[in-house]
Amino acid sequence: MDIITKTLDFQTRGNTDIIDITDDVQKALKETNLKEGIITVFVPGATGAITTIEYESGLIEDLTSAVERIAPRDIEYKHNLKWGDGNGHSHVRASLVGPSVTIPFSNAKLMLGTWQQIVFIDFDVRPRARKIILQVVGDNQNFFKE
Amino acid sequence: MDIITKTLDFQTRGNTDIIDITDDVQKALKETNLKEGIITVFVPGATGAITTIEYESGLIEDLTSAVERIAPRDIEYKHNLKWGDGNGHSHVRASLVGPSVTIPFSNAKLMLGTWQQIVFIDFDVRPRARKIILQVVGDNQNFFKE
Amino acid sequence: MDIITKTLDFQTRGNTDIIDITDDVQKALKETNLKEGIITVFVPGATGAITTIEYESGLIEDLTSAVERIAPRDIEYKHNLKWGDGNGHSHVRASLVGPSVTIPFSNAKLMLGTWQQIVFIDFDVRPRARKIILQVVGDNQNFFKE
Repeated sequence: MDIITKTLDFQTRGNTDIIDITDDVQKALKETNLKEGIITVFVPGATGAITTIEYESGLIEDLTSAVERIAPRDIEYKHNLKWGDGNGHSHVRASLVGPSVTIPFSNAKLMLGTWQQIVFIDFDVRPRARKIILQVVGDNQNFFKE
Repeated sequence: MDIITKTLDFQTRGNTDIIDITDDVQKALKETNLKEGIITVFVPGATGAITTIEYESGLIEDLTSAVERIAPRDIEYKHNLKWGDGNGHSHVRASLVGPSVTIPFSNAKLMLGTWQQIVFIDFDVRPRARKIILQVVGDNQNFFKE
Repeated sequence: MDIITKTLDFQTRGNTDIIDITDDVQKALKETNLKEGIITVFVPGATGAITTIEYESGLIEDLTSAVERIAPRDIEYKHNLKWGDGNGHSHVRASLVGPSVTIPFSNAKLMLGTWQQIVFIDFDVRPRARKIILQVVGDNQNFFKE
């Protein structure tokens, strides 16, 4: 059993920028040589979030509309009154969606559904350089696999 | 330390079918003979989700009403316009609730609250055969346990 | 590779009491002597939730307003009609936010963003004594670290 840390770097556009990171996560997983285990995809930042979705342009718009209903950009946020960042809605959206997803893998392959992609969402209001942490816990053989 | 993969198969009714999978998860955990660790419950599919709830008929209705408020079935979804699946709301709900929960266990028992059950929610619009993945990371003894 | 269980005890005020537990989690992690790994922060109870946020009073109010929009306290809940607990909204909010977050650590330090704190939210309607479970999976050296 090993633990291996990998990081991914992204340049985002902000404003609920929904980025498909599946191929990057899969590639990083391959580089660890671990075969069976779990990978925790985590965003170290309070205005980003991780989830899964079928990544196609229609749903990207639909998910964007949904978070706008839940935490509209143009209502009053105490955070904005206090700090003037203008990103109160970004923080609230990120806390509700959550900062991480843990995904099982087998034979060095993410066990995702056929139409299921991992997305990093940058809810902040401006383009940003972002780092995603991948913490991989696993075995480099599959002796113990059922 | 071992990693053991188990799967659960369900036939769902779709349409926000909320299924109590606690006993199935606990039974699968017992079969691994692992005593201390974490179990990641993951749905490989973009219209399903995992969370916990007190499983009683009142709350099942209440949670169903809440997701209907967040992502109503009858508003316009770009996904539906593009693909004609009629399940845009299913995808959005699944992305917001999330595809996995990781639960600690001790002495081969899930460390849930007394009134807390694990549920798989099928948000899709038709009955489906579904697979849930359980990735168990743990020890088969509890020497290292505090 | 070890697995070590720690617990944290809190006295809450209830009613969407959002508590910064970052320092407690970090302290418990230090006590395990594990250096690299993941920590699953889990609330064993159906009216509590775990997420991350920038912990400042403005955002605490903003997140509270957001869950009030999603699951208002004063609408009808079947749970309340059936059980008279008056905490239907607490349950629904907890299921939507989710009972756990898994966070990577390195060099015995949580890999959080600078302005990102871990919060336990007690959505229940009365003060309660609460237990949080920390399940730590990790190595006490960093030989395998990239």
